Amino acid sequence: MFNAALEMRARGLTVYDLSLGNPDLEPPQLWKDAALSLLNSDERGRHRYMNNSGFPEVRKFVAEREASLYGVAFEASDVTMTVGAAGGLNVAFRTILDPGDEILTPTPFFTEYRNYTENHDVKLVLAPTREDFTLDVDAILSRITDRTRIVLLNSPNNPTGAVYDAASLDSLTAGLRQRTLPRPLYVVEDAPYRNLMFDGSTAPSMLGRYPNTLLVTSHSKDLALPGERIGYLLVAPGCEARSELNRAFEYWNRVLGFVNAPALMQRTLLAVLGQPGGSVDPQIYARKTQRMSQALGALGFGLPRIHAGFFLFPKLPESLSITPPEGGSRDVTFCQLLAAEGCLAVPGVAFGGEDHVRLALCVGDETVTGAISAFERVCGALRQR
Amino acid sequence: MFNAALEMRARGLTVYDLSLGNPDLEPPQLWKDAALSLLNSDERGRHRYMNNSGFPEVRKFVAEREASLYGVAFEASDVTMTVGAAGGLNVAFRTILDPGDEILTPTPFFTEYRNYTENHDVKLVLAPTREDFTLDVDAILSRITDRTRIVLLNSPNNPTGAVYDAASLDSLTAGLRQRTLPRPLYVVEDAPYRNLMFDGSTAPSMLGRYPNTLLVTSHSKDLALPGERIGYLLVAPGCEARSELNRAFEYWNRVLGFVNAPALMQRTLLAVLGQPGGSVDPQIYARKTQRMSQALGALGFGLPRIHAGFFLFPKLPESLSITPPEGGSRDVTFCQLLAAEGCLAVPGVAFGGEDHVRLALCVGDETVTGAISAFERVCGALRQR
Repeated sequence: MFNAALEMRARGLTVYDLSLGNPDLEPPQLWKDAALSLLNSDERGRHRYMNNSGFPEVRKFVAEREASLYGVAFEASDVTMTVGAAGGLNVAFRTILDPGDEILTPTPFFTEYRNYTENHDVKLVLAPTREDFTLDVDAILSRITDRTRIVLLNSPNNPTGAVYDAASLDSLTAGLRQRTLPRPLYVVEDAPYRNLMFDGSTAPSMLGRYPNTLLVTSHSKDLALPGERIGYLLVAPGCEARSELNRAFEYWNRVLGFVNAPALMQRTLLAVLGQPGGSVDPQIYARKTQRMSQALGALGFGLPRIHAGFFLFPKLPESLSITPPEGGSRDVTFCQLLAAEGCLAVPGVAFGGEDHVRLALCVGDETVTGAISAFERVCGALRQR
Repeated sequence: MFNAALEMRARGLTVYDLSLGNPDLEPPQLWKDAALSLLNSDERGRHRYMNNSGFPEVRKFVAEREASLYGVAFEASDVTMTVGAAGGLNVAFRTILDPGDEILTPTPFFTEYRNYTENHDVKLVLAPTREDFTLDVDAILSRITDRTRIVLLNSPNNPTGAVYDAASLDSLTAGLRQRTLPRPLYVVEDAPYRNLMFDGSTAPSMLGRYPNTLLVTSHSKDLALPGERIGYLLVAPGCEARSELNRAFEYWNRVLGFVNAPALMQRTLLAVLGQPGGSVDPQIYARKTQRMSQALGALGFGLPRIHAGFFLFPKLPESLSITPPEGGSRDVTFCQLLAAEGCLAVPGVAFGGEDHVRLALCVGDETVTGAISAFERVCGALRQR
């Protein structure tokens, strides 16, 4: 979709691109100031290799900050700085999984999980969520087998925007604790959107609930730095094989070819995280998603209220007379019609959520305006048939 | 070794660490200025995702520069910006190789090749070099089988410091052209040291000689930025399946979890590469390697003259009465004795070069001085036995 948008623009078309979670916001000024100050410093040796898990002072800082967020006694050694969340997930998967093992994740799900599981010759098992995309704990528990090594949770969720609430995580914890499995079962939380809660809270987590929890995150969204590839991998102190995991993460971070998270980016975090002005303003995304939600609601799309992030995952109205080709799906056809009107969105089927479309509202207001018009034109035409 | 040095320092010991290719030099001031200028700019959207292969203007710049270096008509699409050379090698290997395929490389060899081949379930086949570590073309050609997909050349070489000369590359080209194989055979040049030739030349390359050549490099050494993870992968226009390779590199760069090379680092290259002051000064490494070479020669170590980079790979004098334990090797025992004197070096056996030690001279002059003293003490003790 990224290349499609480039090509459309190259042909002189105005594109209202809601297809990619590529933040339109700039990194905070505080972050820029931190990066400038580090580059201006006379301190030597700060662009060199460090321990493959990251600079000790950065790992310590992250551990202390996460400890205060979740009331869990992380140590610096529980933190592996990674090349974004994508790097962290691949390091975690390579470390934990043997070929043939299973990762269990709620669906709709981030499509790259399919690729990441294929990287490691493991199977992705999907558990449905409820109608509003909240967690269906029984659906997860009933799909756990002796081969399940990881339950992968992505909350706030891409593509649905759903946030898994404390009650459902408590219930999942209780269910997981009752299971006896031949090997440890880890919950891996992929949480790049956790700092974009509209009410300013931190998204509920399995950290502090279930001992075998790992968290992977990045600063692609809260610092608007997706191109700079900075994230980390966090091991809960209660994890089985905690120190072996941490040592293996150091090894695989190196051997898979990441080597280490970019040095300058690691160090900027010290001056930014948890500081006033040390994040993009989630209210900007709240306003954009709300505006789009209202417009979609008026057009008959079904969608739950969104509490975090910038994704919407509306359900196509049944009243629209969309006629996909033999074997096709309504959402693909709808997105093609939308693209013809200059608006790019991703068919839900790509995320295991047929009959939906995924919209990324990390865009300028004029793009929201243009996208709403495109939706109105497509829906108008489909109602006249 | 990196962690061993940290622990020795933590215990208050003075460590003369020649174990790691982690440049002691700072990045050039021109690079710092470029990074500051980019961060200070009001231009929007420059820390976001871009095409997974990199910023178009950076790829174009690299293609034009490489074209002028090698007289080969690279296009922007032949360049994939990567997370260092390690990222580039893993992307290339994942793209080209099927499980069970073979990578053929001259030995001694960079130890990480062993790990990278294991990542992709392929076999690393070693071809000996000559006594002075120059290329033994017949040794390579005689080991090519129907399973060989990649001949991996690392010149200037880590660990030996050898530079493969034009005549040997001509000879390799002639030999490869004569072979008929069921699938294309690619030469992959891993060339992070190519800009550190002491005479200011560019190291000879298979680019412009053998059509199926890929080059992987990084700016870890010439810009002293190993921690920042910036490199690239270059496809020769004559490569079989050129456009398929370039598209596959974009895909695997994303899917393996790198996603893209760090954005800011990509952009700094535009202002630096090929400019006066746009590199560390290789003469600094020339002086350090020469000084260490002379001291080692006086102690009876055998080593060829070094023309690039900062590695030395001296052969232990036979006159030293080193008595390794049953099944051990002399170089491991020697390095243990050296470590007891505060000097860290890597046993040659780690690189497939038993009876040698690898020394990285990208260190301060006082470290060279301390290391020479440690060598003198260890050799003195081993001669008195």
